[in-house]
Amino acid sequence: MDEARLDALFLTTPANWRYLTGFSSQTWAVITRHRFLIIPAKGDPIIVCPRTNLIAVRETTWVNDVRIWEAPNPADDGVSLMVDALRSLAGRHGRIGAELGPESRLGFPVGDFMRIAREIAPLEIVDGDHLLRRVRMVKSPAEVARVRHIATTASLAYEALPPRLQVGDSEREVVAKLKGDLVARGVEQSPYLICVSGPGGYTNINSGPSDRVTKPGDILIMDTGSSYDGYFCDFDREYAFGPPSDPYRRSYDLVWEATERALAAAKAGVRMSELWHVMAEALGGAEKARSSNVGRMGHGLGMQITEPPSLHPNDHTVLVPGMVITIEPGLGFLNPEGEKRVLVHEENVVITETGCELLTRRAPPSVWVVA
Amino acid sequence: MDEARLDALFLTTPANWRYLTGFSSQTWAVITRHRFLIIPAKGDPIIVCPRTNLIAVRETTWVNDVRIWEAPNPADDGVSLMVDALRSLAGRHGRIGAELGPESRLGFPVGDFMRIAREIAPLEIVDGDHLLRRVRMVKSPAEVARVRHIATTASLAYEALPPRLQVGDSEREVVAKLKGDLVARGVEQSPYLICVSGPGGYTNINSGPSDRVTKPGDILIMDTGSSYDGYFCDFDREYAFGPPSDPYRRSYDLVWEATERALAAAKAGVRMSELWHVMAEALGGAEKARSSNVGRMGHGLGMQITEPPSLHPNDHTVLVPGMVITIEPGLGFLNPEGEKRVLVHEENVVITETGCELLTRRAPPSVWVVA
Repeated sequence: MDEARLDALFLTTPANWRYLTGFSSQTWAVITRHRFLIIPAKGDPIIVCPRTNLIAVRETTWVNDVRIWEAPNPADDGVSLMVDALRSLAGRHGRIGAELGPESRLGFPVGDFMRIAREIAPLEIVDGDHLLRRVRMVKSPAEVARVRHIATTASLAYEALPPRLQVGDSEREVVAKLKGDLVARGVEQSPYLICVSGPGGYTNINSGPSDRVTKPGDILIMDTGSSYDGYFCDFDREYAFGPPSDPYRRSYDLVWEATERALAAAKAGVRMSELWHVMAEALGGAEKARSSNVGRMGHGLGMQITEPPSLHPNDHTVLVPGMVITIEPGLGFLNPEGEKRVLVHEENVVITETGCELLTRRAPPSVWVVA
Repeated sequence: MDEARLDALFLTTPANWRYLTGFSSQTWAVITRHRFLIIPAKGDPIIVCPRTNLIAVRETTWVNDVRIWEAPNPADDGVSLMVDALRSLAGRHGRIGAELGPESRLGFPVGDFMRIAREIAPLEIVDGDHLLRRVRMVKSPAEVARVRHIATTASLAYEALPPRLQVGDSEREVVAKLKGDLVARGVEQSPYLICVSGPGGYTNINSGPSDRVTKPGDILIMDTGSSYDGYFCDFDREYAFGPPSDPYRRSYDLVWEATERALAAAKAGVRMSELWHVMAEALGGAEKARSSNVGRMGHGLGMQITEPPSLHPNDHTVLVPGMVITIEPGLGFLNPEGEKRVLVHEENVVITETGCELLTRRAPPSVWVVA
């Protein structure tokens, strides 16, 4: 914080809260009430929260300085408590870091944010999220163990599915089967569980499930961000309803091979951009690599389904041991009817000194076929 | 918008998007990429979104003017497209409404928001969320039908649970049983499903589930915000592990009766604050009514688990037909060991001209007892 010339950090989102204090509560799903965490450059952290959160704060965090208000109070939902707290922390830098930068969100109304910024002037609010991003990017063994647990659990659920599927299942029914099994296996949340199906392939990887009923010749993809003890997996698997077409099988082989190349190349010291080029080459060049329309071929993973860095030609982040990333190559192709389809594979790995360790159970070298 | 002196609204969160355009995609769970919806005071809506969202936008919305960029691009994630679009809409008011007010969130980084605000000056960004809040507060019959569906579904799942529970189940096991049943019944998401248990009662209603194992004499509460077709229920149910104590039964009777009084009093023309006082009187006065530490005794409900208005003595919103609200009285009491406990009941209703219609199946007049 001193390097970044900040007197304090002021944080309002679940991942940063849990990472720094242990705070764990589903209260984040309800946006009426919000809460503030202050990490001063010197001295103890401060939590400013509604009275309703007091017990969860006492039970799950190690923070002692907890200041509460009676919420909801639209006229002053913690604003004056925050103004007092931040003013008292003004130090030699005159700057407070908040969650403002790329891939951040603010956990309370922007109107209140602007009020706090006005009232603490000349103290200035600047981005402090990049500090947390940098620290959180490298996972401890305890964090890696949680991602491994959820990635293994979801892998087993995906693998158990083929004999339970049949032509005629709707996308919604397929998702319900997977989700029911995930719940039975102890998964906490599956906030992301998409499903797209279509003749000879799917058109995108972020819509569905719909009521569309599967037919012979369909390819179906599911992709889930599911969590265990606060940590996420993020990967997909595909199912063919009957024997897949040649164009699909050729694309599958190519993307499977691109994943193999990335798994062989990923290790400490390699740049994300270099890893992108390894996959692009396997797929047949940069244009091919962009034809999946996903915009990148992987990303960081942890307390959020997606975290920096990006597997993108412009992201030159150097991999270090403990980074957890997704490997997510894909491409566009035409099905036998000449319609545009995409194919995207995804695995989760942790970077080591000499390579990487697969956290998911590897997708099969040929697509699972539903009988 | 003209009354509020706005040239356009600029919206970035899932409920407002879905309400106005139909956009439905789990892509919101991933915060790397964000998207913008512009509703001009005159002319057609504009969507500015990453290429990855194009198919979901085409398939689920009626918006024709869709402008895309290749995301992620931290240097310009839609910012210059937004600046161009907003500048072109500057009209006689010189003001753009965004989601800034109470109970709002912004769906993209605040750093980018401040950049857009600077670059479109002298066009000014002010709160426009209150307009959507006002419109969304009153539900159409089609919206009420969706809340009724999910509230009935969750009611049936709660009711089916007692014979499936036993002393010795952990809170996590109890939640997995309920969640598995909700999934089997076609529930889409249960982003809020808390569980708290304790001897003779529970201490709060927003933590858990934990690994705590239930014991004879425990009371366990679950509360879920679950969704169907984009609409939520939000209500709780309680389970006694063995015969409940006298202090608990007396409190249960009191809170059940307070709910009855509110169900009888809620109708078009009544103020939220008046309904609060009806319940407070049944509970034994304002101090008693505040002793649950929840801060209010109900709230609006719809595309979000909590929406305005609040059942609070300071919220004088007048009920009108079509409003969907929760009725959520509670109080604090002492268990036989003299420890502080709370008891909170919750039902969901829609307001009619002459009264209200229960959307949940009413909680039993005596607590369910696990054999």
